Amino acid sequence: MVQSEGVLGTEAKRVFGADTDVGKTIFSTALALASTIAPSRPHAPLPRTLTPHEEGDRVAYLKPVSTGDEKDMDSTHVSKFAPHVWSQTLVQFTEPISPHLAAEQLGSKLDWQAEDASLVRRIKDWMLLCEHEPRINAAILESAGGVHSPSPSGSSQADFLRPLRLPTILIGSSVLGGISTTRCSYESLRMRGYDVDAVLLFPSPHYQNDKYLAQFFADQGIRVFALGGPNVNSWGMPPARHTSTKQDAEQLQKYYLGMIHGNGRDDCMLDVVNHLRECHAKRYASLDTLGERAHQHMWWPFTQHTRIAPDDVTVIDSAHGDFFQTYEPSSSTMKPVLDGSASWWTQVIGHGHPRLALAAAYAAGRYGHVLSPGIAHAPAVTLTERLLGHHEPCRLAPGRGWASRVFFSDDGSTGMEVAIKMALQSSVRRYSAAVVSPTTEARIKPGRQSASLGGRTPREWEILGLQGSYHGDTIGAMDACEPSVFSEHVAWYRGRGYWFSPPTLRMKCGKVYVETSDSAEWGKEPQCLGVFSSIEEVLNVQKRLDTKLAAFYKRVVHERLENLVIVERRRFGALVLEPLVMGAGGMIFVDPLFQRCLVDVVREREDLFSLTDPPLRHAHMGRVTAARSNGEWRGLPVIFDEVFTGLRRLGCKMGADILGTTPDISCLAKILSGGLVPMSVTLASESIYSTFACSREKTHALLHGHSYTAHPVGCQVAIETLDVLEEMDLNGSWTPYQKQWSSEHWSVWDKSFVNLLSHADRVSGVMALGTLLKIELKTDSVSGYASDAANDLMLKLGKQTGIMEHDTTSSLSSHTFPLHLRSLGNVMYILTSLNTSSDVLRSVQKSLEREFL
Amino acid sequence: MVQSEGVLGTEAKRVFGADTDVGKTIFSTALALASTIAPSRPHAPLPRTLTPHEEGDRVAYLKPVSTGDEKDMDSTHVSKFAPHVWSQTLVQFTEPISPHLAAEQLGSKLDWQAEDASLVRRIKDWMLLCEHEPRINAAILESAGGVHSPSPSGSSQADFLRPLRLPTILIGSSVLGGISTTRCSYESLRMRGYDVDAVLLFPSPHYQNDKYLAQFFADQGIRVFALGGPNVNSWGMPPARHTSTKQDAEQLQKYYLGMIHGNGRDDCMLDVVNHLRECHAKRYASLDTLGERAHQHMWWPFTQHTRIAPDDVTVIDSAHGDFFQTYEPSSSTMKPVLDGSASWWTQVIGHGHPRLALAAAYAAGRYGHVLSPGIAHAPAVTLTERLLGHHEPCRLAPGRGWASRVFFSDDGSTGMEVAIKMALQSSVRRYSAAVVSPTTEARIKPGRQSASLGGRTPREWEILGLQGSYHGDTIGAMDACEPSVFSEHVAWYRGRGYWFSPPTLRMKCGKVYVETSDSAEWGKEPQCLGVFSSIEEVLNVQKRLDTKLAAFYKRVVHERLENLVIVERRRFGALVLEPLVMGAGGMIFVDPLFQRCLVDVVREREDLFSLTDPPLRHAHMGRVTAARSNGEWRGLPVIFDEVFTGLRRLGCKMGADILGTTPDISCLAKILSGGLVPMSVTLASESIYSTFACSREKTHALLHGHSYTAHPVGCQVAIETLDVLEEMDLNGSWTPYQKQWSSEHWSVWDKSFVNLLSHADRVSGVMALGTLLKIELKTDSVSGYASDAANDLMLKLGKQTGIMEHDTTSSLSSHTFPLHLRSLGNVMYILTSLNTSSDVLRSVQKSLEREFL
Repeated sequence: MVQSEGVLGTEAKRVFGADTDVGKTIFSTALALASTIAPSRPHAPLPRTLTPHEEGDRVAYLKPVSTGDEKDMDSTHVSKFAPHVWSQTLVQFTEPISPHLAAEQLGSKLDWQAEDASLVRRIKDWMLLCEHEPRINAAILESAGGVHSPSPSGSSQADFLRPLRLPTILIGSSVLGGISTTRCSYESLRMRGYDVDAVLLFPSPHYQNDKYLAQFFADQGIRVFALGGPNVNSWGMPPARHTSTKQDAEQLQKYYLGMIHGNGRDDCMLDVVNHLRECHAKRYASLDTLGERAHQHMWWPFTQHTRIAPDDVTVIDSAHGDFFQTYEPSSSTMKPVLDGSASWWTQVIGHGHPRLALAAAYAAGRYGHVLSPGIAHAPAVTLTERLLGHHEPCRLAPGRGWASRVFFSDDGSTGMEVAIKMALQSSVRRYSAAVVSPTTEARIKPGRQSASLGGRTPREWEILGLQGSYHGDTIGAMDACEPSVFSEHVAWYRGRGYWFSPPTLRMKCGKVYVETSDSAEWGKEPQCLGVFSSIEEVLNVQKRLDTKLAAFYKRVVHERLENLVIVERRRFGALVLEPLVMGAGGMIFVDPLFQRCLVDVVREREDLFSLTDPPLRHAHMGRVTAARSNGEWRGLPVIFDEVFTGLRRLGCKMGADILGTTPDISCLAKILSGGLVPMSVTLASESIYSTFACSREKTHALLHGHSYTAHPVGCQVAIETLDVLEEMDLNGSWTPYQKQWSSEHWSVWDKSFVNLLSHADRVSGVMALGTLLKIELKTDSVSGYASDAANDLMLKLGKQTGIMEHDTTSSLSSHTFPLHLRSLGNVMYILTSLNTSSDVLRSVQKSLEREFL
Repeated sequence: MVQSEGVLGTEAKRVFGADTDVGKTIFSTALALASTIAPSRPHAPLPRTLTPHEEGDRVAYLKPVSTGDEKDMDSTHVSKFAPHVWSQTLVQFTEPISPHLAAEQLGSKLDWQAEDASLVRRIKDWMLLCEHEPRINAAILESAGGVHSPSPSGSSQADFLRPLRLPTILIGSSVLGGISTTRCSYESLRMRGYDVDAVLLFPSPHYQNDKYLAQFFADQGIRVFALGGPNVNSWGMPPARHTSTKQDAEQLQKYYLGMIHGNGRDDCMLDVVNHLRECHAKRYASLDTLGERAHQHMWWPFTQHTRIAPDDVTVIDSAHGDFFQTYEPSSSTMKPVLDGSASWWTQVIGHGHPRLALAAAYAAGRYGHVLSPGIAHAPAVTLTERLLGHHEPCRLAPGRGWASRVFFSDDGSTGMEVAIKMALQSSVRRYSAAVVSPTTEARIKPGRQSASLGGRTPREWEILGLQGSYHGDTIGAMDACEPSVFSEHVAWYRGRGYWFSPPTLRMKCGKVYVETSDSAEWGKEPQCLGVFSSIEEVLNVQKRLDTKLAAFYKRVVHERLENLVIVERRRFGALVLEPLVMGAGGMIFVDPLFQRCLVDVVREREDLFSLTDPPLRHAHMGRVTAARSNGEWRGLPVIFDEVFTGLRRLGCKMGADILGTTPDISCLAKILSGGLVPMSVTLASESIYSTFACSREKTHALLHGHSYTAHPVGCQVAIETLDVLEEMDLNGSWTPYQKQWSSEHWSVWDKSFVNLLSHADRVSGVMALGTLLKIELKTDSVSGYASDAANDLMLKLGKQTGIMEHDTTSSLSSHTFPLHLRSLGNVMYILTSLNTSSDVLRSVQKSLEREFL
C-alpha cells in the first residue's frame, strides 16, 4: 500500500473525469487559463482577454500518465493554449490504449513505472517543486480516463492517487446516461475519502444533465458549473477540429474565451476560479481552528486537559496506510506523520483501506443495523463461523478447537465484562450450592447487599490475575485489575482479585533475561531466573516445559494458591490473563512459561477452589472432578484477554498460541473490526455456555446485551479484515524481515537492528515480536533520565523531519517522517501494520539508530 | 421512503447497466432466450436452436419504465426475438428522454407514476403474478439507463428499486473508459446492499475491458462473462440495423444464436444461465441453514437459548426503511416484517439509508479510524459542536445552553459508566476532603479494600434513582439500578443506591391517571394522585409546577432524603434519571412532574449531601454554597440517561425538554449514530468538567477511554443523521398524525386511535408519545391473562398477514405485514421511525383495532 507522504499548502486540485472523453483537458486548460486571468483581489476590473493578470495565479499543470502520440499529449494542448502555465507530463506511453495495457506491453523495461508508490513519489516531487517555486501558487493535476480507469500498475486512478487526497474537481458527463456515470463516479470518490469542490460539465439542453446534477449536488453542498463556448454550438462542446492548424487554434481560443468569460451564460470559468479559491480558503480556515475547537469542547479520554495547550493538539486531516496527514496551523502545511501507536493498537492493514470502506458501505446499505437476539443475519453468522473455524478460510480462527459460541459486544471493556460474568457464574454454579441472591439481600437493605451478609463480611468471588494487567475502564473490567493510579480516584472501583507478580522478559546486549521484581512470591530482591540467547528461544514454551524453571514456577504458584485459599480463606471464580504481553501495563513481556504453568496449576488444583465450602467439596466435588470430560473447564474458567495480543498483532494468530494452551473464554476487539469501528467478541467453550443454557429459566441466561450487538457493519468489516489477513498469509511473507526470524515467533522488524538496539547505553531492554517494537529506557539517576525519558524521546521523534540518506528513485521527497507515539512510563514502543512497507520500517529504524547508537 | 415489501422465491434478477447503451436489452433478450433453452437438468443434450427446451425456464421479462417510441420498446424487442417469454412494460413515455424529464413534461396528469412507492408496488404485483403463475419460474427485470439514471420521480434506479433488493446482473461497458464506469457502477450498487451475481459485457479485443474486469471481479467473487455474436464483428456487438425488417430480424437471430451457444468462444449465455442458477441455489441453500447455524454457534444477548428452537430464529436477509426482509425456510419465501422495536430502539430514519451508507464509507475512506486523545479530526469536532449547539444547524443540539464538553464512548452502558464516574468524582471532591485512596487500602489487603476500612464498614458513595431504571449491563451501570432478575445471578453486582418508587402515567378510557404503587414513599396501598384529560395535559410540567401535587411531591422527596441521610447515614454522589420513560423497565411513563420535583429538591438541599462529614460542612460548605455560580452543579450532579429518550424518540428533542430542566451530565446513544454503528456521548457541564481539569495531575483526569473513542465513521454518520432529522424538521410535519397533537407533545400515532385503544377491555392502559406506542395488558386472573399475555399477543401479531381493506393503487400487494416485536412483561410496545409512512401506521393501527376492539 502506498504511504501518504504529505500534500502542500499550494492550492492543488485534482481533476477527475466521470468518464473518458468528458472534456477533462478542455476544462483543465480553461481552468488553468482562468486562474491566471482572475485577480486574487476580488472586484478587480477584468480585461476580456486571455492574458494573465498580474494578480492572477501562477499555475502549474501535471498529467501524471498520458497515452497516445506525443504531439497530442494533454500537456501539449495546455502549453499551446495556456502558454503561461507550466505544464508537464510524467509518464508518456505512445500506444493510445489504457496505461495498464501500455505498461504491460512494454514489459519489464518500465517496471518502476508500474509501481504506484514510485509514481506517487514523483507527483510529490513535482508538488514540492511547485511549493518551493515562487513563480507557482496553484497546481492542477489531471487524472487519466475516469475515476477508476487503470493506472500503469492496474490500480484505479482514485486508489493510486489516494495518498495525496487532493481537493477534487469532478468533470461530469453531459451525454445520455451521464447522470448515472457522474453520480457513480462521485460515490466512488467519496468512498475513498475525497472531497469534491466542484462538478464541471458541458451544458446539455436536451438531456438536462446539468440541471439534474446541479440540484443533486446542491444537496451534497457541492456546486455544479455548466460551461461551454456559447457561440460554438448549443451543447457547449468544443468545435470540431479544423483542417487548418491555425484556424483550429483560433476557433479554440475563441471557444476558451467564451467558456472563461461566459458570454452571458449563467456560469463561467472565472466563477469556478473564485469558487475554488473560496473552498480553499474555507478549508484552511477550518483547519486553522480545528485544533483549538477540539481543545475547547472535546473531553478526551485519558487526558489531563490542563497539560495540553491548543497548539499541542494534533490536527488530522486524513489518514492513509500507516500515516496521518496532519495539519500545522503555524506553517499552514500538511505533514505526513507515522501513526506509531497504530491508533491505540487498532490498525493492522492500514488507514483508509478501500476494501473495508466498501464492506462497511455494503452492510450499511443492505441492513443498516438489525437487533441481535434470536436473529440470524449473514455477516454475524459468517463471522461467528470464521472465528470458530467452521468456515473456510480459517487459518486465523481464534476459537478453533476449543470454543463453541461467540457473544458479541462493543469494545474490549464490555467484552471482558461479559467474559467475567461468564466465568464467575460458571464457578458460582459449580462451587456453590446456594448462591446468595443479591435480590434477597437488597430487599433488606437496598444498596448495601455487598457490605453485610447477615452480620458477617461476605466472601467476594475474586479473580486471579497478574500485576500490570489492564482489561478496560468499565467498573467490572477495572475491578479485575489491581489498584493503580488509574483506579485511585474512581469511587466505585474495588479490585476484586489476587494478582501475581509475573517474571518478565528483557533483551539486553543480545541476551534475553527472565527476571522477577520484589514481591511476595519471589522474595524481596529482584532475581534473574534465566538467560536466553534469543527472543525465539525464550518464547519456545513447549521446549521449556520440562525445565527446572517450569517446576519452580509450578511450585511457587501451588504454594501461593494454597496460602490464599486455605490460610486467607479467599474464594476465586476465574483466572484472567493477557497472554504474553500486557499492553497498557507498559508493553510488559511476561515469561509465557510462567503463564502456562499458572494455567496448568489452576486447572490441576480443582480441589482448592471449593475448599471454602467444605460441604460442597464432599457432596459435589468428587463427582464432578471425576466426570470432567474433555473440554470441560477445570479448576477455574481461564479467560484470555486477547484484545491487544490477538489476530497477528504479535505475529502469531493469538497470544494463546505462544502459551501452547487454550482458554475457556477469550476476548477479542481492536484489530477484529479492521481498525474501523468498535466491536468485540467473547468466545466461550461449550462447557461455559452450558452453565447458562442449563434450564429454561430466563434468569439463568446471560442477561447482557448492547443495542448494536453483532452490528452488520462491524461483522462485514471484520470478515473483510480476516480475508485480507488470510490473503497476505497465502501470498507469503508479510514483510521483508519476517524470514530472519523463526516461523512461529517473528517480527516485522529487522532482527539485527533489534539486537543492535539492545546494546545501546540508554536502553535498559528491548523486545520485538510481530508488529511490536518495545524499547525500555534507563531511568536511573546516573544517566540523568527521569521517568519522563520515554515521553521526551517521543516528543523528539515526533518532530523529526529530514532527508533520508539514500534514495534511489527521487531527489526530493522520501524524508524521514515524524512519529506519532504514545508513552507508557519509561517505555516507548512502536506498533506498525502488517503491511507496512520496508521503506517505512527502514526509515524508523534509521531514526532510532541515530538516536541511540 | 419506500417500504420493502417482499421479494419472491422465483429466481428474479435485476439487470443494471454500467452505462446507458451498454446493451442491457440485448443481454436481457439473450438471457431470457437462453433460460428457456437451457434444461434445468444438467448435462442434458442441447439442440443448437433458439427453441425453448421442455426442461428450460419459463421466463417473464419486465421493463418497469421505458421511454421512446412504443414500437422501439425494449419489451417489444424481447417479444419479437424471444416469443415464449412473457414480456411487459409498466410505464411508457413516448418522448425519448430520461424518465424524470418525460414525467415532468406530462406534469400532474401522471402524478402517481412519479411516486417510487407506487411503481415499486406495481413491480411487486408483477412479481406476485409471476410467483402465482405456474407457467413462469424465472423473471428478469431490466432497469432504465445506468445504475443511477433517474426514475420518473427523479430518484436513481438503484435507490428506487432498493426495496426489492433483487439479485443483480451488471452489464459492463466495453468501450474506452468502460473499466471505470463498470467499477463505479458496481460500487454504487454495493453501497446499497445489492449482491451482483454476474457481470456481462461485450468482448473488447482492443481495450481488453473484459480481461481487466474479469480479474478485478474475480477478487470480489463475481464472474464476468464476455459475450457476443462472434461471426458478426470482432467486438461482439450486435450488427448494424438492416434496412429490410426481415433481414434485420434474421441477422439478429443469428447473432443471438451465436451469443447463446458461443460458437467456440470462451463464454456463452448458456454458461451464464447455469451460473445464475447456481448462484440462486447457493443463496437459498445458505438462507435455508442460516437460522440453524446462528442457533448453533451464536450466543445471543439476553436470550435463554434453551427456549429457542432453530425454527424460531428470524432469518433477516436484508432490511429497508421500517422493514426486515425475512426468509422462511419452510416455504422458501421472503417476507417483509415490520421492525416493530426499531431494532432495539436504534432506528429513527429507517434501515439501509443510502445517505448513512455513503457517510460511513466516506469517513472510512478518509480516515479509517484515528485515536482520540489530543487529536482533532473534523467529524469529531463538528459533531461535538453540533451537540453543544455551537454549529449550525442546531435545532437538535441536546447540550445547548448547559453542556460545555463531550466525552465519547461506545454504547449506552459505557456512556453511563463515564457519567457516573464524572458525577461521583465531582461529589467526592466537593464533599470529602480526604478521599480514601483504594491504592493505599489495597496495599494492605489486595482486593479487599471495599470490605473493610480500618475495621469499620466504609460508607459507599451511592446514587439516587428510580425503581424500574436501566442503564446498561456493565457492572458500573448495573450497580446504578436496583436489584432485579437481571442482576440476580451476576456475582459482582451490588446495587449502590436508593431508588424512589415513581408515580406513573396510564391512559384508560380517554383519561390519563397518575398513580403510585405500594412503597415506602407512598404508603402501603397504590393511590391515584390525579386524573388528566389528555396526554398533552399531564406532560405540561410548566403548568403543573405550582399545583398541590407538586408541593406534595416535593414534601415526599424532602422527607425521604432526610431520612436516608440523617437517619440511615447514607452518602450520595449523584441523581440518575431516565427522563419521562424508563424503556427497559417496561416503557414506564413516569410522571415528569415528579422527576422535575426530585431534581429541584436535590438541587435545593445541598446541605444534606455533606451532612455525613460534619467538619467539612462547616469548613467547606458555607463557602461553596454561597459561591455557587450560575451553571455550577448544586446538591448532587444530575445525570439524565437519554440513551432511549433522546433525539426525537419521544417527539421532543430530548426527554429533558419535557421536564423543563437541564441536567449536569447527559448520556446519548442508539439514535445518535443513526441506527448504524455503536457510539455514545456523555455531555457534561463546565462545572463537572472542571472537577477533572482542576490541576495538572494526570490522576485527577478522567482516566477512561476505549480504542474507538470518537471513531470518524460513527461521528460522520451521526452528523448525517442530525442533518436528515433537521431537514425533516424544516420540511414541516413528520407524519400525517403529528398535527393532531400539541406542538410540544406529539406522536406519530393517530390520536383518536390511541384514545379508542384506551377503551379496550383487555387493555389496562396505553400511552403514545413521539414514535412510541405502549399498550399495557390486563394481567388479572379474571380476564385469564397471565404475564405472558404480551408475549402471546406479540407472537400472534408477528404472524399476521392478510389483504388490507382499501387499497387504491393495486389489487394484489399491500397486505398487512407481520410485526417483529419485543415483549416487556405485560407491556407491548411499537416503535417506529420518524419517517414511517402513513400506510404503514394505518396498517398497524388496523391490526391492533381488529385485535382489541
